[in-house]
Amino acid sequence: MYRSETCGELRIADVGREVKLAGWVQRVRKMGGMTFVDLRDRYGLTQLVFNVENDAALTEAANHLGREWVVQVTGKVAERTSKNPNMPTGDIEIIVDSLRVLNASEVPPFTIEDDTDGGDDLRMRFRYLDLRRNAVRKNLELRHRMTMEVRRYLDSKGFLEIETPMLVGSTPEGARDFVVPSRMNPGQFYALPQSPQTLKQLLMVSGMDRYFQIVKCFRDEDLRADRQPEFTQIDCEMSFVEQEDVISTFEGMAKHLFKELRGVELTEPFLRMSWAYAMKYYGSDKPDLRFDMRFVELMDVLKGHGFSVFDNAQYIGGICAKGAAGYTRKQLDALTEYVKRPQIGAKGMVYARVEADGTVKSSVDKFYSQETLQELRKAMNAEPGDLILILSGDDTMKTRKQLCELRLEMGRQLGLRDKNKFACLWVVDFPMFEWSEEEGRLMAMHHPFTHPKDEDIPLLDTDPAAVRADAYDMVVNGVEVGGGSIRIHDSALQAKMFEILGFTPEKAQEQFGFLMNAFKYGAPPHGGLAYGLDRWVSLFAGLDSIRDCIAFPKNNSGRDVMLDAPAALDDKQLDELNLKIDIRESEKH
Amino acid sequence: MYRSETCGELRIADVGREVKLAGWVQRVRKMGGMTFVDLRDRYGLTQLVFNVENDAALTEAANHLGREWVVQVTGKVAERTSKNPNMPTGDIEIIVDSLRVLNASEVPPFTIEDDTDGGDDLRMRFRYLDLRRNAVRKNLELRHRMTMEVRRYLDSKGFLEIETPMLVGSTPEGARDFVVPSRMNPGQFYALPQSPQTLKQLLMVSGMDRYFQIVKCFRDEDLRADRQPEFTQIDCEMSFVEQEDVISTFEGMAKHLFKELRGVELTEPFLRMSWAYAMKYYGSDKPDLRFDMRFVELMDVLKGHGFSVFDNAQYIGGICAKGAAGYTRKQLDALTEYVKRPQIGAKGMVYARVEADGTVKSSVDKFYSQETLQELRKAMNAEPGDLILILSGDDTMKTRKQLCELRLEMGRQLGLRDKNKFACLWVVDFPMFEWSEEEGRLMAMHHPFTHPKDEDIPLLDTDPAAVRADAYDMVVNGVEVGGGSIRIHDSALQAKMFEILGFTPEKAQEQFGFLMNAFKYGAPPHGGLAYGLDRWVSLFAGLDSIRDCIAFPKNNSGRDVMLDAPAALDDKQLDELNLKIDIRESEKH
Repeated sequence: MYRSETCGELRIADVGREVKLAGWVQRVRKMGGMTFVDLRDRYGLTQLVFNVENDAALTEAANHLGREWVVQVTGKVAERTSKNPNMPTGDIEIIVDSLRVLNASEVPPFTIEDDTDGGDDLRMRFRYLDLRRNAVRKNLELRHRMTMEVRRYLDSKGFLEIETPMLVGSTPEGARDFVVPSRMNPGQFYALPQSPQTLKQLLMVSGMDRYFQIVKCFRDEDLRADRQPEFTQIDCEMSFVEQEDVISTFEGMAKHLFKELRGVELTEPFLRMSWAYAMKYYGSDKPDLRFDMRFVELMDVLKGHGFSVFDNAQYIGGICAKGAAGYTRKQLDALTEYVKRPQIGAKGMVYARVEADGTVKSSVDKFYSQETLQELRKAMNAEPGDLILILSGDDTMKTRKQLCELRLEMGRQLGLRDKNKFACLWVVDFPMFEWSEEEGRLMAMHHPFTHPKDEDIPLLDTDPAAVRADAYDMVVNGVEVGGGSIRIHDSALQAKMFEILGFTPEKAQEQFGFLMNAFKYGAPPHGGLAYGLDRWVSLFAGLDSIRDCIAFPKNNSGRDVMLDAPAALDDKQLDELNLKIDIRESEKH
Repeated sequence: MYRSETCGELRIADVGREVKLAGWVQRVRKMGGMTFVDLRDRYGLTQLVFNVENDAALTEAANHLGREWVVQVTGKVAERTSKNPNMPTGDIEIIVDSLRVLNASEVPPFTIEDDTDGGDDLRMRFRYLDLRRNAVRKNLELRHRMTMEVRRYLDSKGFLEIETPMLVGSTPEGARDFVVPSRMNPGQFYALPQSPQTLKQLLMVSGMDRYFQIVKCFRDEDLRADRQPEFTQIDCEMSFVEQEDVISTFEGMAKHLFKELRGVELTEPFLRMSWAYAMKYYGSDKPDLRFDMRFVELMDVLKGHGFSVFDNAQYIGGICAKGAAGYTRKQLDALTEYVKRPQIGAKGMVYARVEADGTVKSSVDKFYSQETLQELRKAMNAEPGDLILILSGDDTMKTRKQLCELRLEMGRQLGLRDKNKFACLWVVDFPMFEWSEEEGRLMAMHHPFTHPKDEDIPLLDTDPAAVRADAYDMVVNGVEVGGGSIRIHDSALQAKMFEILGFTPEKAQEQFGFLMNAFKYGAPPHGGLAYGLDRWVSLFAGLDSIRDCIAFPKNNSGRDVMLDAPAALDDKQLDELNLKIDIRESEKH
């Protein structure tokens, strides 16, 4: 061992001991004949002292150390004259008597500090240096603790962690698969799993009863800010359960994690909210409930007063921003620009301030009497000093989603989205299907294995779009951290589901025959849930993106810029795989 | 919840309670007016009783239940009149008052019993039914407990589990990679990791200090009996350590696992054996030390007596099989055939029995005097009743490997390879390189990142083939369960290693530049080890193959016969990936 202790553990009680430390040079300070070196490792920082009067050559050597050099020292622990109460080791320092350079370092391309001078691209290219920073390392430590706690909890509840294969079959339903050519089966491909959904259902058929897995999943999607082509799921499934059983098991797990990892005791049951309610009052199936600011529908109040935008609208809705009447014209214009951005797509925004005397001044005063505006105020439950913001449109759902974005932005501007406050809820009663304009057919909102609500099963024949599912999402602070459903365990019902989704019986058999056949041999009722580990960790870590809780993430083009992957293959490799590259002209660059 | 308890937990103390159970019908027995049903789940079996006198319709329904139907019952726990001491629930039965069929089952294609009538192929196609068998399920339970214990142990030692990416770059050094075409980067491919070797080294450069991961690895090799294209590794790495530190940490872990999972207390330090010693005395770098039967070199004794086979041999070696002098001519012929099989490749075998009176009778008596044979006996330390088996050849290493196979076979025949006995050792001081006839160059015996022994570093320039490495394998019962090494952390030494391995500086930079560059920024001394999880579990479970400790294994052609993967892709998918299939004529079938 190159050390007798780490750089984080020496204390005043150790004074007088001979120790051996190893680590990285964080900083070298020369003060007169003294040289101070901060030595760093994962566990902390320890101050080393060299004194020219004790050993001139050794001190000279210390003066030549550079940032990030790796050194080993021996010396005696001494009490500091000026203690540093901000450092756990701040009471002591090491009077060094020998110094060995284990490895020199070139000057790193950015500083290894919490606030680094490295830009995103540089940090990713030198990710192994970026990970030396406390700010990043502690996210990985949190991730480790989180997976330990998840396993401890689920093990204590009788769940078995069972590894499912990574090389599976491709199932074009859902997102795009990553595929893997098989050399031994020429012309054929494996797929990497988008999730172990069907495999965990087979494990239920096999009587495993309670399964979980913390597992890599893969989706070949065009990447958005907070997506990675590979991501990690806490994947769970249980037999002989109803929705209530799954929810209570995993609400218990969530509370356990909050307590162990954040010290937050959540004693109340999580709120349950139907999907329809969430869409109506928050315009989202993952409402951020750290603040209220619920939607109020204003069709009755504002329609029919000659303001054609509202008069022609299918939906008019408002939110009340408490205490924001002081917003300037400039701020309001910026908000209008915000909702008009193509990503949001609103046509405009109407606002109304409630003055100190109770009168309402709006951006559409010429169309509305003070009387109507007072009705508006009453509907919005607005008080003097409040600001009312209103959107309208000819598509109710789209307008609600726009209003949702506005609500979230106002919450942000008003400081209502505190990262240290957590609002958890279950969104339930999701629709079974949603209409896809692109595909011209109904698509499964969760996936084709979701069980419809028993009472809605007759609607499958008459009005499938109205069928609700035994599906549930857990939402924390506006983030969907997990979701699941009770599954179909009956092969006839599963076949009907595929039919509604536009599969021919042959196609269904070809793609999901293994599952429907399995259901013929005694499949138990079952259901489950999958949590997104990356999202959970970033939520607990207070990160804006999942990237910094992943050791080696990919960029928005799916590249690992450190490894420079993906890359071209040798011709020999392509030959062995029976493949030829055939890049379409449009793709060439 | 469909049940109030599982099928494994009711005891005599529960008599009189009203319970609700759910599970699979294992067996239905009709005895007069009584019908007995064994209800099964993961946790056990419970006997259900139906009595025509109590409820004729209910009993009639029970009579119609088939094997593997899924049912739910309610009833009262009663004490059995004839108890079954072989079942944990054998003191009680359930007097059923309601029965609900949750799912019927077709007759399964094989019996769900420990000794099933299902052949291998059928079991794999219906793996979800095969997994219902106790014999298979308990392997997965053991695997779960093993990974829990590994994590608990390593967490307690300060290791962080850090996920490394699955989509990495291809590195043709080593085995063949599985690759993944990138749609977003046309013509380029990711590779699936053969192991996270370089990534874990980068984590050491990043100061993570102690890393582990239980992780899927991938090798596109032609499959042998005990290989899978995807397998699971317990991958570990530590900083600021020497070989001794790594060995003691992971020997501690092995002992912990033996104790927790098998109840075996291993108190002595594991034996250490140099690679050279292991090859000389056991003909293997993974000797099975459950029995001795060490090789004795017999050149001095048997050469120069006119037996041309031995006279021309480069190596003559024997083993002494205690008490096996009674082997018949037929048995000895079968052994000769065994070592002459092409997989082993010996030319022949010589034997010698030590008779009760001490005389030695051999298959080559006409060439050797009794005096020489007595010398042989002495050299072999053989006693009356022992059998001496001798192989020779013109290639020392090859002949030793043949003798190793003979030794293992004799150990098996003599019952010396007890699955409940465990002989653990470390093989150390591996050669750094081995000569590849195929490539016509030196290859790294472990991998190119292995640190040479400090005292052998000068030999890198003069006699690289003689250089030994700081590498170590843990061997249990003749199985290499893990291995590792101290790594190079100096970019100049790493560059020299690539040079010896025949890399041009450009090629080394292209493939491993990311690692050599990382070493320039303060890489700490580090080393580690990887255990093969599948092998460990099968060792603990007493399995002959790793297959039955894997939920959904692949067959020898790399196929998942249950999922029917791999399979052809849609043209649309190939198009998006800019690929064309180009099967060489020779591959078509």
